[in-house]
Amino acid sequence: MSVRFKWVVMKTKDKIILASLDLFNEKGERNVTTNHIAAHLNMSPGNLYYHFRNKTDIIYEIFLQYEMLVDHYLRLPSNSDLTIEHMVFYLESVFDGLWSYRFFHRDLEYLLDCDQRLRRDYREFTMRCMQSIVTILKRLQKSGVIVPMEDDFVSAMALNVWLAITNWMAFLKTAHAGEENNVITKDMLKSGIYQVIILELPYIAEGHKDKVLTLKEKYRPQPFV
Amino acid sequence: MSVRFKWVVMKTKDKIILASLDLFNEKGERNVTTNHIAAHLNMSPGNLYYHFRNKTDIIYEIFLQYEMLVDHYLRLPSNSDLTIEHMVFYLESVFDGLWSYRFFHRDLEYLLDCDQRLRRDYREFTMRCMQSIVTILKRLQKSGVIVPMEDDFVSAMALNVWLAITNWMAFLKTAHAGEENNVITKDMLKSGIYQVIILELPYIAEGHKDKVLTLKEKYRPQPFV
Repeated sequence: MSVRFKWVVMKTKDKIILASLDLFNEKGERNVTTNHIAAHLNMSPGNLYYHFRNKTDIIYEIFLQYEMLVDHYLRLPSNSDLTIEHMVFYLESVFDGLWSYRFFHRDLEYLLDCDQRLRRDYREFTMRCMQSIVTILKRLQKSGVIVPMEDDFVSAMALNVWLAITNWMAFLKTAHAGEENNVITKDMLKSGIYQVIILELPYIAEGHKDKVLTLKEKYRPQPFV
Repeated sequence: MSVRFKWVVMKTKDKIILASLDLFNEKGERNVTTNHIAAHLNMSPGNLYYHFRNKTDIIYEIFLQYEMLVDHYLRLPSNSDLTIEHMVFYLESVFDGLWSYRFFHRDLEYLLDCDQRLRRDYREFTMRCMQSIVTILKRLQKSGVIVPMEDDFVSAMALNVWLAITNWMAFLKTAHAGEENNVITKDMLKSGIYQVIILELPYIAEGHKDKVLTLKEKYRPQPFV
């Protein structure tokens, strides 16, 4: 099936979601109206309103897709020992998701203010992600990659990992603000993995330290000062 | 001099700045117009425009005050050894500043999009704060509170401290979103100090560990799940 044919059979609703996501990522949600989205799709505003009552409803649908993607990424294998390779896979996947939905964490608080459903769902999503990070850290402890730690320490560390991951894009935008060409690329975003490795490094067991140090170098960010 | 008298002699420009800061903190910058600010001060919009061309100019003035405050807080003593008490003082001060100007980091990216001066100044402010955190960490190393570390490790750690500090308010808002009474208090904000201590703990020298562990308990956040 050609890409062209796929586009032709894509449902209007999905087209609206994809176009909105592109525009939000590119221009920021605050600068995009439903009229812009309709114009971008050569569609009448009336046709767009037939599928979505307003921008809030489009954003909510986008969030549901983002949530599904991240939940999928963070599904852990039930039996085998977790390895450093698993850890890297989770980080890579989560940063892929952050990239695809990068408008979302930019203007999060305002988005949550506007929509009670989103507020409730995002809160549960945050708690679920944090629980997944805790589980990953505990499974890495069990397999000997991470040294033993107390439970409340693991939770606090998971929260610091979450803070670093979800705010990395915004930090990059700030750090590069004012430059002639301040476009953030996916590779630049993935340098956030370096920050997460720095957080975990003191707890990596001796036998695994060299491997993690090599990994750290792979994600070392370009200097921005 | 009574508080009343102080208010009477306060310049109109300062009154506008203070009222705007209150309204932005309370309602979010996005939900406050210059007309709201003028009405709040029983002032005609024309009088407000005489002092500030637009909301962007008010926000920029507020930023300059915030910047001055944080720069003042982060001035280090030139001679004496840095102690854990110094570290706590810096953290307490920075979180006081975050509290007083809490609207600022909520909608930061949009604010930066709107104002080139702010974008340039905030970028320099970020780099200066990060440099201050690096200097504090290095001085704590010199006085034996923190174990020796490589320079690029100190920088990466300073960046994780910065990410935790500047995004803590937004995280709290999210974590408590959807609750009946989701008002964030200054004490709740200061539980962010717990997260910073968790970041530093692996690097605290043996002789100082007990003191830092006791401190950690002082800032332990209330559970929010």
